[in-house]
Amino acid sequence: MNKLEEKILADGRILPGEILKVDNFLNHQVDMELMDWIGGEFKRRFGDCGITKVLTLEASGIPPAVLTAYKYNVPLVFAKKAKSGNLGTQDLYRALVKSYTYGNSFTVTVAKRYLSPEDKVLIIDDFLAKGEASRGMVEICRQAGAEIAGIGICIEKGFQPGGEQLREAGYHLESLAIIDEMDDQGTIRFRE
Amino acid sequence: MNKLEEKILADGRILPGEILKVDNFLNHQVDMELMDWIGGEFKRRFGDCGITKVLTLEASGIPPAVLTAYKYNVPLVFAKKAKSGNLGTQDLYRALVKSYTYGNSFTVTVAKRYLSPEDKVLIIDDFLAKGEASRGMVEICRQAGAEIAGIGICIEKGFQPGGEQLREAGYHLESLAIIDEMDDQGTIRFRE
Repeated sequence: MNKLEEKILADGRILPGEILKVDNFLNHQVDMELMDWIGGEFKRRFGDCGITKVLTLEASGIPPAVLTAYKYNVPLVFAKKAKSGNLGTQDLYRALVKSYTYGNSFTVTVAKRYLSPEDKVLIIDDFLAKGEASRGMVEICRQAGAEIAGIGICIEKGFQPGGEQLREAGYHLESLAIIDEMDDQGTIRFRE
Repeated sequence: MNKLEEKILADGRILPGEILKVDNFLNHQVDMELMDWIGGEFKRRFGDCGITKVLTLEASGIPPAVLTAYKYNVPLVFAKKAKSGNLGTQDLYRALVKSYTYGNSFTVTVAKRYLSPEDKVLIIDDFLAKGEASRGMVEICRQAGAEIAGIGICIEKGFQPGGEQLREAGYHLESLAIIDEMDDQGTIRFRE
């Protein structure tokens, strides 16, 4: 079992509706030793393949993406959730992302000047379930003409279809913890 | 002139209305060497004063706060902008923050379990102008009974009143770049 899996078992909480709360070390309070490990582990798994930028989505993807960009010493770009005021401009890539947690959809944007066909992008996010956020970032890279080096996910819900779909589409997807099963009694089974 | 001031002069853009765009190295695309310097510089300025947590506000405060927490090896807590769905719960500290950029107000929240009277908190943010975001984080620390070690700001607009008010209120405020004057012709004057 790796450091993240151990942390999930020790400090994660399961709420009804297959919700895994990891807000005491990943997406509200953030454990910096764990982020250091996560950044290093993504670098080990994706290796030296010419990554020029790390891309994530505000807000909870930012801490693991910062440490990954830090280890690679490349810029981080974080896609923004659009506010009504900045949708009219022509200088943005944009993608629609459906949120199952909040039951709505939102547009994410990246300024065109920060992604180009010269870029080789590593996409990082904290969670992968149905894959909506990752697909939004993939779509933004497609609009930019940027190459996608891979997708690095901290926690994948393996019992939801997002990961499988991205792998089948040919992306190099690395999830540091894949949960194949969890229940309200607190049982969590990780994929070997 | 320090690294951040040099970067502002080299890569910042001034838009009408005294808006300084630093989205190519600070709050959209993020320069990791600069974040490394910022984290180290905050640690040098605030020193070893028993800080237990770094607190910031999503989303653009997170990258400099991550590197600061990383240098101190303490947890980062990022306050969240409230969504309507999570306002009813009793387990949140909350503060109202007025945004002059977007002309509205929003509520920021921190789960009560992540700040307590045992904590000594370093507040970090990317910008300080009228001081609304910083005051929101100060208010959350007050509700938690946590001690405030200081407030670390990347860029302070010295011609707006937020910094002066926080200093007069007795907070240890360190701003890495204080802009005393800027104009649409691209002139920026930093405080010595």
